[in-house]
Amino acid sequence: MEYNQVFVQMALHAWNVQIGRTDKFFDAIADEDLKKQVAPGKNTFFYLLGHLIAVNDTMIQLFDKGKRSYMHLDDVFVKNPDRSGLPVPVAAELREEWKKSNKQLSDIFSKMTPDEWFSKHTAMSDEDHKNDPSRNKMSVLLNR
Amino acid sequence: MEYNQVFVQMALHAWNVQIGRTDKFFDAIADEDLKKQVAPGKNTFFYLLGHLIAVNDTMIQLFDKGKRSYMHLDDVFVKNPDRSGLPVPVAAELREEWKKSNKQLSDIFSKMTPDEWFSKHTAMSDEDHKNDPSRNKMSVLLNR
Repeated sequence: MEYNQVFVQMALHAWNVQIGRTDKFFDAIADEDLKKQVAPGKNTFFYLLGHLIAVNDTMIQLFDKGKRSYMHLDDVFVKNPDRSGLPVPVAAELREEWKKSNKQLSDIFSKMTPDEWFSKHTAMSDEDHKNDPSRNKMSVLLNR
Repeated sequence: MEYNQVFVQMALHAWNVQIGRTDKFFDAIADEDLKKQVAPGKNTFFYLLGHLIAVNDTMIQLFDKGKRSYMHLDDVFVKNPDRSGLPVPVAAELREEWKKSNKQLSDIFSKMTPDEWFSKHTAMSDEDHKNDPSRNKMSVLLNR
């Protein structure tokens, strides 16, 4: 196996471990507890979950894989702070979007070639990438 | 730059991002709030912090870099569950150990060559590594 193939495998495994842990974490929190703060003065679990979906979803665009699926969450969970007063989805819906989003991303990731992973993402110029080849699609994934 | 060097650089960057976030997170929690639970029915922030120090510290041994520095935390934060009744360090001491441990690990990591990163860790056999080269020192780091 080539080095770069091994890297991709390692990075995807690390991503899946991370998602699996996060998934287990949210599954263990009851709907009524989702609206509690992660820590005193911090965001709620609910906001955190929506934020993760929206932010992970940006990878579709960054990796040049078409249009985002969860842009409708940006207003409430990214552009505005927690408890902004905007209407929010119900917990069950958000939990389902979280699962669906992970499934969609994992399908996209599994089809990407090593060359694709090590190429620049859509928010970078050719020069950015030339100056720092460690900035690429895979680094986006690793730094989530 | 070689692919494997780029990958090491990316993985270390991802690790530093992760530690930086965790550091900021714990710094934002007051000493008196550390003993609260991360989520209802979950471990306390205090236990989580001690657990992270002890578990990260095992990399010293796994990477064949000598003796562990925070083995004394294993009893309270790894081998026993939260609120076991065992005597625990004071918050300030634990916070200092967290910072020191990160500094020590980052010093060790920065001196490791790509070949070292992609070699098997001390808890693996030669055969393990041959069968699955994506299991190595770097995968330990990535999966934390």
